[in-house]
Amino acid sequence: MNAVKIGLCGLGTVGSGTVNVLQRNLQVINARAGCSIEIAQVGARRDNPACDLGDIPVTRDIFDVAKNPEIDILVELIGGTTVARDLMLCAIENGKHVVTANKALIAEHGNEIFAAAKEKGVTVAFEASVAGGIPIIKAIREGLSANRIQWLAGIINGTGNFILTEMRDKGRAFEDVLTEAQQKGYAEADPTFDVEGIDAAHKLVILASLAFGIPLQFDKVFTEGISQLETQDVAYAQQLGYQIKHLGIARRNNGGIELRVHPTLIPRKRLIANVDGVMNAVLVKGDAVGPTLYYGPGAGAEPTASAVIADIVDLARTLTADPEHRVPHLGFQPESLNDFEVLPIGQVETAYYLRITARDVPGVLSKITLILSEANIGIEAVIQHEGEEGEEYVPLIIMTDRAIEQKLDEAVDKIQSLSTTKGDVVCIRVESLG
Amino acid sequence: MNAVKIGLCGLGTVGSGTVNVLQRNLQVINARAGCSIEIAQVGARRDNPACDLGDIPVTRDIFDVAKNPEIDILVELIGGTTVARDLMLCAIENGKHVVTANKALIAEHGNEIFAAAKEKGVTVAFEASVAGGIPIIKAIREGLSANRIQWLAGIINGTGNFILTEMRDKGRAFEDVLTEAQQKGYAEADPTFDVEGIDAAHKLVILASLAFGIPLQFDKVFTEGISQLETQDVAYAQQLGYQIKHLGIARRNNGGIELRVHPTLIPRKRLIANVDGVMNAVLVKGDAVGPTLYYGPGAGAEPTASAVIADIVDLARTLTADPEHRVPHLGFQPESLNDFEVLPIGQVETAYYLRITARDVPGVLSKITLILSEANIGIEAVIQHEGEEGEEYVPLIIMTDRAIEQKLDEAVDKIQSLSTTKGDVVCIRVESLG
Repeated sequence: MNAVKIGLCGLGTVGSGTVNVLQRNLQVINARAGCSIEIAQVGARRDNPACDLGDIPVTRDIFDVAKNPEIDILVELIGGTTVARDLMLCAIENGKHVVTANKALIAEHGNEIFAAAKEKGVTVAFEASVAGGIPIIKAIREGLSANRIQWLAGIINGTGNFILTEMRDKGRAFEDVLTEAQQKGYAEADPTFDVEGIDAAHKLVILASLAFGIPLQFDKVFTEGISQLETQDVAYAQQLGYQIKHLGIARRNNGGIELRVHPTLIPRKRLIANVDGVMNAVLVKGDAVGPTLYYGPGAGAEPTASAVIADIVDLARTLTADPEHRVPHLGFQPESLNDFEVLPIGQVETAYYLRITARDVPGVLSKITLILSEANIGIEAVIQHEGEEGEEYVPLIIMTDRAIEQKLDEAVDKIQSLSTTKGDVVCIRVESLG
Repeated sequence: MNAVKIGLCGLGTVGSGTVNVLQRNLQVINARAGCSIEIAQVGARRDNPACDLGDIPVTRDIFDVAKNPEIDILVELIGGTTVARDLMLCAIENGKHVVTANKALIAEHGNEIFAAAKEKGVTVAFEASVAGGIPIIKAIREGLSANRIQWLAGIINGTGNFILTEMRDKGRAFEDVLTEAQQKGYAEADPTFDVEGIDAAHKLVILASLAFGIPLQFDKVFTEGISQLETQDVAYAQQLGYQIKHLGIARRNNGGIELRVHPTLIPRKRLIANVDGVMNAVLVKGDAVGPTLYYGPGAGAEPTASAVIADIVDLARTLTADPEHRVPHLGFQPESLNDFEVLPIGQVETAYYLRITARDVPGVLSKITLILSEANIGIEAVIQHEGEEGEEYVPLIIMTDRAIEQKLDEAVDKIQSLSTTKGDVVCIRVESLG
């Protein structure tokens, strides 16, 4: 099997997450990439106990990695816009592809970096720079390539969204929630980038360039943070049927483009208005497809690592596969397909809503619950509704815990056989999707 | 500029949509693809007045297209599993790549078709076969390639979801809504595929194969439709805090895979529970990224065409670009970047929430509304809240219509200058995102 060699620079949250996910899921990742992906070298100022590098050689000079002729792809996870820029340009100069999560660097220096990469015939991939693990870059740049994008709007900073959610749900003041966010690690010691919208502006400018095909222009983004928001406005907005979210908006407007980050009232009925806590979401309106929404974790070690590795797999497929068959049809190399068994429905495990038509007399419920408990099926709720006037039978609703379907079927048969029930039990499966 | 030649087979809803979007957005599509995409031939039994083919040659024998040596990519939009299968295999045999929207064909014959394509060194792309314009295939196969997928759950049939939404919102019976759906064109004359879950099962099996790396096994999907659902269960579910949705679920379970389509109660607080009408959504849980949701129009001429063309652009990029630089960094060829101006904030057009601290005396509101009307700023709502006991000033909330920000700023200055207001007006922008 071909090998693609990675040089990983930076062992912070995302760096260690990337090491961990690559190690844990190596088999499935290689089966998808069609080659062997190996971290050949790590450049980091210090080790990180959150990951175990095993025998991987470590250098304290990250520029070693950029000059290491063995390395095919340099993964830049050190952050910042000075050393990271030099590192990236050095890697490009040395003919390496680059994968990065660095929104500030791409937003502020992307035009220069992409030009250098194109000149050298290498690729700079940056899925991880916007909205964490949500593959939004790929969606806009490839999935929606048929569209004239009309606008996009995103909740793209989880810290700010966490703060707004708490302000709304608990009527707390901004400063109070910010302190908690810092204690929980949702906000930096210096939270300015998050709460003043600068982080969101970095990400917005990247999305807008992809959507509208314009050069990156970070300095042109209008940015307004959430630190001046008052609890009473959050409450009034709610009463009016709106939520306040810190949105990044890019919109076509009469031959020009609007680029703005600011608190925004949006109708509560919109899906994106219900994106809470540290989650991110981007709504994109294309002229052919209409409105599409992408939602998921916007930050964190493993969500961001998921995006970093997706870019690595993309590049690895490009480097090693037959160009006309870059991505295998089912995403896995055909010789690596799994032989998992598809289970018959009796072996499925789920929870159930049962509606039983039962006689309205004492003892009926206890007979039914006895049948379920003998089958080891837990009961989450029981509701008995009033029957119609004079009706001998009433609807009895039972919500069960998760159970194996075959066990439930057997229990339902017994319930149906009781003299105190009539007709079939209505069974509808329940999924928490949590 | 390189040209990539398309042979389009089938001029139904999706075929005519594909022609229309390709024509309308040709410039932006070519700028992204980095080559010239041309429909060189159409194969169709009859013309479709919904699109204008101009000079494009038409043949009534679609197999002409599969054998036409000029064609690089055959786009199969005729549907069905018999002639379409023969057409696709013929195209593959003749060395052409294939793009399709045909879920039934891929679900039932995909293993054979992919093997033939791999043997011949061509690609079969099928983004349009699941969830319309939402780029879900690309998301799972590429964007989430770092993950062990744990489960996925999708609302992937718009007809069924439309019917369930109406049953819930208006307490209508299934048969009644189905009749309306047929009249509106949301359901076929024979609605079995939609309401019995067969269409959803086709799509689920494709998603599951991509997620778990298993061969396509349509015959193993457990399928239960919505035709037996009673209005009273929809109501009880609501009361219990759930929505009933027709879900396709694929889940890992103890070394096996669950594949099932059936009505399901899901908690109302889940985003996916609030996907209504003809929209689709797929929730995917990966071990690294966590939960990600993809939402958008699941059917229709232009949404599906958006996915068909995304596949065409992908293939065109593969066929014509330098393999190591297949997708341009900003999605557009650097020489084709647009020079749209980024507008200063004063030229942005949006709606506003204004909170004015105003004296609680007659005449104040009319002075304020006069200022707004003189600036041609429409007013959507006015709410005056009770002030605290003995307070001279009360909060006055005004929701405006859309206006140019500079005009609003000038009006706000005047409002702030009134003797009957004090302090700054709080202005928060409002977006309907509709």
